[in-house]
Amino acid sequence: MLPTIQTSAATFFLLFLLVGCPAALGGPKPHPHRLPCKRLVFYFHDVLYNGHNSNNATATIVGAPAWGNTTLLAGQNHFGDLVIFDDPITLDNNLRSTPVGRAQGFYLYDKKDIFTAWLGFSFVFNSTQHKGSINFAGADPLMNKTRDISVIGGTGDFFMSRGVATLMTDAFEGEVYFRLRVDIKLYECW
Amino acid sequence: MLPTIQTSAATFFLLFLLVGCPAALGGPKPHPHRLPCKRLVFYFHDVLYNGHNSNNATATIVGAPAWGNTTLLAGQNHFGDLVIFDDPITLDNNLRSTPVGRAQGFYLYDKKDIFTAWLGFSFVFNSTQHKGSINFAGADPLMNKTRDISVIGGTGDFFMSRGVATLMTDAFEGEVYFRLRVDIKLYECW
Amino acid sequence: MLPTIQTSAATFFLLFLLVGCPAALGGPKPHPHRLPCKRLVFYFHDVLYNGHNSNNATATIVGAPAWGNTTLLAGQNHFGDLVIFDDPITLDNNLRSTPVGRAQGFYLYDKKDIFTAWLGFSFVFNSTQHKGSINFAGADPLMNKTRDISVIGGTGDFFMSRGVATLMTDAFEGEVYFRLRVDIKLYECW
Repeated sequence: MLPTIQTSAATFFLLFLLVGCPAALGGPKPHPHRLPCKRLVFYFHDVLYNGHNSNNATATIVGAPAWGNTTLLAGQNHFGDLVIFDDPITLDNNLRSTPVGRAQGFYLYDKKDIFTAWLGFSFVFNSTQHKGSINFAGADPLMNKTRDISVIGGTGDFFMSRGVATLMTDAFEGEVYFRLRVDIKLYECW
Repeated sequence: MLPTIQTSAATFFLLFLLVGCPAALGGPKPHPHRLPCKRLVFYFHDVLYNGHNSNNATATIVGAPAWGNTTLLAGQNHFGDLVIFDDPITLDNNLRSTPVGRAQGFYLYDKKDIFTAWLGFSFVFNSTQHKGSINFAGADPLMNKTRDISVIGGTGDFFMSRGVATLMTDAFEGEVYFRLRVDIKLYECW
Repeated sequence: MLPTIQTSAATFFLLFLLVGCPAALGGPKPHPHRLPCKRLVFYFHDVLYNGHNSNNATATIVGAPAWGNTTLLAGQNHFGDLVIFDDPITLDNNLRSTPVGRAQGFYLYDKKDIFTAWLGFSFVFNSTQHKGSINFAGADPLMNKTRDISVIGGTGDFFMSRGVATLMTDAFEGEVYFRLRVDIKLYECW
C-alpha cells in the first residue's frame, strides 16, 4: 500500500507543478488564473494648450502633419498630431481634487477616418501612499467605451510590474479637456 | 528499500523544480527552452504622405529636424524624421489583400550615417480570428536583412504576451512605400 | 513512521513551490528575492544640435511647442521639446572612449515648472562582447540624483530581458551636452 501512497503524492506534486508554473515552463498552455495581484483605479485630466490657456494647460501639441499646426488639433480626426502631457492624477473624477501623482508622456492620433490614439506614458507617484512609477504603452481606440493598454513595467512600489490598464473616457469637453478613468490590473507583482 | 524510493522521488521533484521554474526562482540561469508558445506571421504596408497622395497615404511625417519638413524625408538618412502611421496588416505580401488588422503607432529615423529607425506601435485586431492588440517597441537597424524588436505586452487574445518579433523589409519603393514582414514569436502566453 | 517521512517530504515540496514560484502562480505575494540575474553599467553621451554643431551633434529637436523651435530648447523647462538621438555608449565616463554600442530613440521634456523627461530608447550592441538590444521606457525626473526606468524587453544576448535601469546625470554642460550613467539590473534573464 505504501508505494501507492508514494505514487499519488508524486502525481499530486507533478500536477501541481504543471498547473502552477506554466509561464516558467515556457509551455503554450494558457495561464489558469487571471486574477490581478494588485488593482488600482485613478483618473487623470488633460487640458490641451490652444494658444489662449497657457496657465491651465497641462498638455501641448508638439508635432503635426503638413495640414496642421501646434495650437489647433488637425483635421482628419487629428491624424498626425503628437501631444506631450503632464496631467494631474486624482482619486475621483474632480479636476480640482488634490493630485496624488502625475501622468507624464505622450499621445498621438493615428487614424484619418476615426479618432484613435497611441499612448506612451508613466504614472509617477511620490506620496506617502505610493512611491514609484507605472509605465504604460498601447493603442487607444478612443471611440470604444473601454479599451485596454499594457502595463509594461514599473519601479519603486511597482517594481517589475506587468499588467493591463482599462481606459474609459470619463469626460470630454470640445478639444480642450478630457478625463480618463484608468483601471490598473497588475498580474505580475514582485 | 522504501526510503530509497522516497529519496529518488524527492530528488526528481527538486530537479524538476529547478529546471522548470528558473524565471520564477529569479536565478541567473538561462531559460532552458526558447520555444515560442505562439507564432504569427503578418505583413504591413506603409504609404507615406508626400503632399500628392492624401487619398492613399497611411502614414505622415509629424516631426522633423531643422533641415527637414513634413512632406519630404530629411537628408542625412532621414535622421530626425518622426512618422505616425495607421497601416493595413495582411496575411500575405499583397497590399490589396483584405486587411486583418491595423498597425498603429510611430517610427522615427535616428542615425545620420545609415538608415536606422526606432518603433513604438501596436497590432490592433478586431476580427473573428483575432481580437485584441500586440504592443511592440525597439530598435530597427533596417539595413540588416532581419532585425528583432520586443513584444512588450498584449491585450485580449494576446493578454499579457511577451516575446520577440523579427522584422524583414519585404519591399521598398522609393520614399513612398515599404512593406514589412513581421514574424511574431511569443514566449510568454497566458 | 514511513508515512511521517512522506508527509514531511510533501510539505517540503509544497513549501518550496509556494516560495519558489510566486510569479508563476500568479499570486499577490511579493517576490522573495530582488537580486539581479545580470548587471551592467554604461555611460552614454548626448550632444544636442543647436544650429552650429552639425558635425558633432548626436541628437536633434524634432518636435516643439508653439513657443519653441527645432534649434533651441524651449522656455518653461523645455516643456514640449521632443529629441531624437543616436548617442555613443562607453564603458567609462569619457566621451572619447571607444563606443561599445549606441543608445538610440527619443526623449521628451514634459513638465512646465521643473525639468522632467520621458524616454523611449534602446541600447544597440554589435561587438564581440555583446550582441543584441535592450529596450527601455519610463519617466526621468532628471533633477533627482538617481531615477529608475524600466527595461521592457531585449533581443539577442538580452533575449526577453526585463528589469530596472537606474539613471544618474554624470555631467551636464549648458544645453548642448549631457552624460548619463546607466546601471542596468535585469531580474528576468532567459
